[in-house]
Amino acid sequence: MLLSVLQANASVMDVEANLRTIDDAAQRAAHAGAGLLLTPELFPVGYAPLRLHAELDPAILPDLRERLAGIARRHKVGLVYSLPALSRQHTADDDAAQPPHADGAWHITATLLDASGSEVLNYAKVHLFGPEEHKAFVAAQEPPAVVDFNGIRTSMVICYDVEFPEAVRAAATRGAELLLVPTALSEGFDNVPQVLIRARALESQLNVAYANHSGHEDVYNFLGGSVVAGPDGSLLAAAGESPTLLFAEVGTETVKAARAEVPYLSDRRPELYGQWRDRQG
Amino acid sequence: MLLSVLQANASVMDVEANLRTIDDAAQRAAHAGAGLLLTPELFPVGYAPLRLHAELDPAILPDLRERLAGIARRHKVGLVYSLPALSRQHTADDDAAQPPHADGAWHITATLLDASGSEVLNYAKVHLFGPEEHKAFVAAQEPPAVVDFNGIRTSMVICYDVEFPEAVRAAATRGAELLLVPTALSEGFDNVPQVLIRARALESQLNVAYANHSGHEDVYNFLGGSVVAGPDGSLLAAAGESPTLLFAEVGTETVKAARAEVPYLSDRRPELYGQWRDRQG
Repeated sequence: MLLSVLQANASVMDVEANLRTIDDAAQRAAHAGAGLLLTPELFPVGYAPLRLHAELDPAILPDLRERLAGIARRHKVGLVYSLPALSRQHTADDDAAQPPHADGAWHITATLLDASGSEVLNYAKVHLFGPEEHKAFVAAQEPPAVVDFNGIRTSMVICYDVEFPEAVRAAATRGAELLLVPTALSEGFDNVPQVLIRARALESQLNVAYANHSGHEDVYNFLGGSVVAGPDGSLLAAAGESPTLLFAEVGTETVKAARAEVPYLSDRRPELYGQWRDRQG
Repeated sequence: MLLSVLQANASVMDVEANLRTIDDAAQRAAHAGAGLLLTPELFPVGYAPLRLHAELDPAILPDLRERLAGIARRHKVGLVYSLPALSRQHTADDDAAQPPHADGAWHITATLLDASGSEVLNYAKVHLFGPEEHKAFVAAQEPPAVVDFNGIRTSMVICYDVEFPEAVRAAATRGAELLLVPTALSEGFDNVPQVLIRARALESQLNVAYANHSGHEDVYNFLGGSVVAGPDGSLLAAAGESPTLLFAEVGTETVKAARAEVPYLSDRRPELYGQWRDRQG
């Protein structure tokens, strides 16, 4: 499957401008033959946790989601978008440990649509980054799920999640061959795409696509530097700091070849890792 | 502390030649002011699992260990060496699950000596690589321990172990600030030192030193490419393919600074990771 990755600058709280950017990218991706367009974290509303917390009206979200589905349907291309979402995952136990935010428990989420605009996978961010995200959002608790997408076992995590090997292992041990990662990474953290993303791909032997913002939004200056890494740790595509649309061919054959050469996943010793943690107390 | 890392070619089953190489490196390391010399996996006997399995007489090991301690003591420098060792870790439970080898249960081990030649830390390899190692050795089960060495919380793993983020997490969550890794990595695996080692250092925010063989031994052609990575994922030192002695300054201040900037270890969610595994069944 040809995968396209949008790196772009969003306008905070300017949904019309951001949807135009996604629509334009979807058109170009589809025209190039891509089966899927990955867009950055919170792109339709802009990455601005405190402003979203203060200003975003949840009543606009259903229409926004429908318009994003329309983009996928109109261009006949799969689409990953990221939006805030009111939590529907809290159980009675969770509520006791972590009561919902006074004004609603917002997660940062990602949604995978197929080329007909139907939702096929949802994910909510487990590892929140820094005080702004912790103030504006609540951390989710569910592991990344995996679905078949155009013949590739596909999963998603969001931004800071992917910097934790444990999160990617959870996707890989559930069968993921392609991990899609909307992100919002600030400048100065070049080692995240250049080292950590390649390591995640190599150590769990899957394709990892990482779509970042570029330029200035709210109080943040973003790195750009979006990448697609293959299951041998190589870079299949890499962006500079400017807006761009990356393309990379991702599939299952390279995953199978990497796992046949060095069987990382089956050489793990999870029974020991559990004992080691338990004994640490 | 100034750390030195030996990258060299060993002669299989030629202990005299290999001890001369270590003695020479220890002299140069001490002369340069290094507090510790790290040497490659199984260097004193050469990396040759099947030949060691067939030919190595365990009766030579106590004398060999005493001569290595003499090198540390004579040059007043800490030393990490790696040797086969008869397993003394088996418990009744372990024996039931994994009976000792017919002719003795050998581990691949690493030993840290202080500058007086005293053993301060031992480790036995948990992740064996490939059919030769599995035929010649048994995998150990203990997590990496941590000791204070010249003011730095220090731990060890061996070769393939470090390619598993779980192994390095076990050292980091026990407080390691410096991870010493004797290795025997074949050519063609450049992404291990260049990507995975840097990622291990960055994601767990500690110093990682990785000492490899170079050249041809037994049936193997080694990569060289030894590295020292700092807790921000940067390369503090890196070797080419030829024998060399690397030097790098490693300390605790850079560890503290990295952990203060991005608190990876405290932002982990180990209670969730355990639930995720349990639910996977």
